[in-house]
Parts: sequence; structure tokens; C-alpha cells
Amino acid sequence: MKGKFISLEGGEGSGKTTAIQFIRQWLESHRIPYILTREPGGTPLAEEIRELILTSREEPVNDVAELLLVFAARAQHLAEKIQPALDQGTWVISDRFLDSSYVYQGKARGGNVQMLDLLASWVVGENKPDATLVLDVPVELGQERVVQRQQQDRLDKESAVFHQKVRDGFLERAMAEPDRVKVIDASLSLDAVQKQIEDQLMQLNTAWSGDV
Amino acid sequence: MKGKFISLEGGEGSGKTTAIQFIRQWLESHRIPYILTREPGGTPLAEEIRELILTSREEPVNDVAELLLVFAARAQHLAEKIQPALDQGTWVISDRFLDSSYVYQGKARGGNVQMLDLLASWVVGENKPDATLVLDVPVELGQERVVQRQQQDRLDKESAVFHQKVRDGFLERAMAEPDRVKVIDASLSLDAVQKQIEDQLMQLNTAWSGDV
Ligand SMILES: Nc1ncnc2c1ncn2[C@@H]1O[C@H](COP(=O)(O)OP(=O)(O)OP(=O)(O)O)[C@@H](O)[C@H]1O
Ligand SMILES: Nc1ncnc2c1ncn2[C@@H]1O[C@H](COP(=O)(O)OP(=O)(O)OP(=O)(O)O)[C@@H](O)[C@H]1O
Ligand SMILES: [Mg+2]
Ligand SMILES: [Mg+2]
Repeated sequence: MKGKFISLEGGEGSGKTTAIQFIRQWLESHRIPYILTREPGGTPLAEEIRELILTSREEPVNDVAELLLVFAARAQHLAEKIQPALDQGTWVISDRFLDSSYVYQGKARGGNVQMLDLLASWVVGENKPDATLVLDVPVELGQERVVQRQQQDRLDKESAVFHQKVRDGFLERAMAEPDRVKVIDASLSLDAVQKQIEDQLMQLNTAWSGDV
Repeated sequence: MKGKFISLEGGEGSGKTTAIQFIRQWLESHRIPYILTREPGGTPLAEEIRELILTSREEPVNDVAELLLVFAARAQHLAEKIQPALDQGTWVISDRFLDSSYVYQGKARGGNVQMLDLLASWVVGENKPDATLVLDVPVELGQERVVQRQQQDRLDKESAVFHQKVRDGFLERAMAEPDRVKVIDASLSLDAVQKQIEDQLMQLNTAWSGDV
């Protein structure tokens, strides 16, 4: 029986990494084998590509080049890490995945959506996550959390308008694929956020056991 | 008036880098402004992508990932180096370009040609070279030249069957686009090779002056 593939999505500071720590505890308490991973990245080569994408540099990064780098890392991540794990029955929890490309390179930067769809079909195809949890917070709250946490990279240094597009983009992804993409109200207390995530995990685990 | 864009193509050891040194002398003697560049690479970011592609690593490199890395580097190279130079009237001489992708990732590795065509149209579009010179040598001769030169990377360590596909692939590119892609018999003496290249340069330069 294949493992389940879950991706966490949302703007900066929405609580993805925090949510993954909770999911890890839940999986351990249910004795479900799992790996944690992230995008861009997840394998040594894909992490090197991540470095290229996130490093601040004087040379302007061409939008098409960035999009192709993201999908190159994703192809490597799927082939060398995600699919082998799922095939062994291991659950895979990824901090960001395909929806971030639609939101950042597509919606927020105005990238070519036809190109995104074709890359998605070539690189990901039927291997989309079983569930994608979008951690949704108002832009100001996400920014406050980031500022408190102190650590910035190239993508963090964007305007409020950009972050609003990101939030809207994730909500559109949920409307387009409601069976896969679930919106979590992440403006609430940690307890309340974790309760919503646990509900989703229990539904997936039932679906999982049901497959036996 | 835009500069002319020339790419040099051919298998390992066919004489591309040697030919470029001759082209450089010819351009200087004609007082034509030019830059020399190469693929994958050509800008700082694109050279970092080149390193990722050519480094030997334990992790198998997924074919789709490699193809997307090559085109990411090319998008960056065109946007940040080739097009700005051509727009200034500077000629651009590139050691490998688009045809190498068709030959290595497509023909020799059996990659998805529909994907190559779409990437080529997105990334390169109308910005193909004005002339592509394919340096054609029998596989054994290219290998002898490489062995004499002593220096190997990941792509060099391929079989004779692979190198034969590479040679055939470049000849097919010339048949498919005979106006742009010219075959140079590079098995001949340096003088004879340079004579053929000079003929091509003179034709391009006439076309160039004619545009004034
Ligand atoms: N529900 C919550 N209530 C209050 N604070 C939270 C909540 N969830 C996360 N935080 C805090 O907000 C900050 C950002 O959270 P986290 O690092 O998990 O976000 P992220 O989505 O992973 O951000 P990034 O995109 O930058 O990786 C952290 O300091 C975290 O402790
Ligand atoms: N026409 C020629 N006759 C004899 N030797 C040649 C000729 N052209 C090049 N060589 C020699 O062959 C070797 C390979 O040439 P060169 O480095 O130019 O090939 P290349 O196509 O750039 O190879 P690579 O793909 O590995 O970069 C060099 O030692 C060069 O001096
Ligand atoms: Mg995080
Ligand atoms: Mg060379």
C-alpha cells in the first residue's frame, strides 16, 4: 500500500514549518512511517538548485529561468525521494510543493500559466499530493510572525501587494481543486490550527486504512 | 544594426573551441565587435547551473531535471548576455547552443522531443543563431583528440554508441534546418577546416553589411 503525500502551503510566516512539527508528532503517535521534506529542495541536487534560486545576486534572475529551475528541482525531488518513499508505504510531508509555483511564479509574478500547466503535467502528472493544506493568514499577521522570527531571504523582501497576491493565489488553488487543497484558518491559536490539521489527517488515514 | 549570432556545435573533440579561436582572429581582423560565450553557461548564474549539470555525483540525475536545468541556463544566457549584446551590434559566438539539447538530451538520451520543441519555442523562440556551424568528425577521431587533450567530465564518459548518436543527431539538425545549420568537415587539417569556416563567416558578413 502506497504512503500518503501531504504538502503544506501558504505565504511566509503562515505557520507551515510549525504545522509540520505537529504532523510529525501525530504520525509518530499513530506509528505511521514518514519522511519530512521541502521544496525547492529535498535531495542534494535539488537543494543545490534551491540555493541558486534563493541566493540574492546582482544578476537579475530571468523569470523563465527561475520557473525552469523550480521544476528541475521538483523533477529530481519526485524521482529520487518522494516516489520511492511513497512506493515503500512511507508518508511524505513536504513544506511547499506544486501549488507554490502556481502562486509565486504564476499569480504573484504574472508568469505564463500555459507553461506552468505543461510543466506541471510533464513533471508532476498524476503524482500530485493526496492532500494539500493551505495555511491561510491575513498578510499583516504573516509579516508580523516573520519579523518576530528574524530571518529573510530574497523572496521575503517583497511588497504587501505581492503578499496579498500570494494569499489570493493559494485561495484560488483551493477553489480550483477543493478535493485536494484544504484551507486551514491559521490566524487562530496554535491549538485551534492543530485541531483543523488533525481533522484532515484523520480523514486521510481513514482513506488510507480503507485501501488495505 | 543587430550583431550576428553564431553557434558552434559538434561532439566532444570535434574542434569547437579551436574553431572559435580562429573566428575570434577573423572578427578582430575585420574590426567586428564580438563576445565569446558558451553553453551551458555564459552568465554567473548560468555557469553555476552548468556546474550542477556537469559535476559527477552519486545521486542519479533525472533526465527531465537535466533538460530543465539546461533550458533554465539558456533562458538566463539569452536574456542577460546574448540579446543585450546583439542589440548593441556586437556579434555573439557561442560554444554550443540549442542544437546540443536536441542532440544530447533528445537524440542520444531518448528525451521527449515534444517537450524539447516547447521549451525551445518558449526559451529561444525567434532568437535562434543566424548560423550554426556543426564540426563533423568520425566518432573515433573525436575520441582520439579528446584522449590526447586529457580532461574528462561526466558527459565524456559515454559509450561509442552514444557518441555515434551524437554525430548522427547533429547531421539531422543540419538536414532539418539547412539554411541555418552548416556542416563543416572537421576531420581535415586545421587549415582546411578554417577555410570552410571563413567561407561561412564571409557569407554572414555580406548579409550583415547588406542590412545597413
Ligand atoms: N498559530 C500560530 N499562532 C501564533 N504564532 C504562530 C502560529 N503558527 C506559527 N506561529 C509562529 O509564527 C512564526 C512563523 O511560523 P513558521 O516558521 O511555521 O511559518 P512558515 O510558514 O514555515 O514560514 P516560512 O514560509 O518563512 O518558512 C514562528 O515564529 C511560529 O512560531
Ligand atoms: N582540424 C584539426 N586537426 C587536428 N587536431 C585538431 C583539429 N581541430 C582541433 N584539434 C585538436 O583536437 C583537440 C580537441 O579540439 P577542441 O578542444 O577544439 O574540441 P572541442 O570540440 O572544443 O571539444 P569539447 O567538446 O571537449 O570542448 C584539441 O587538442 C585540438 O587542438
Ligand atoms: Mg517554514
Ligand atoms: Mg571545447
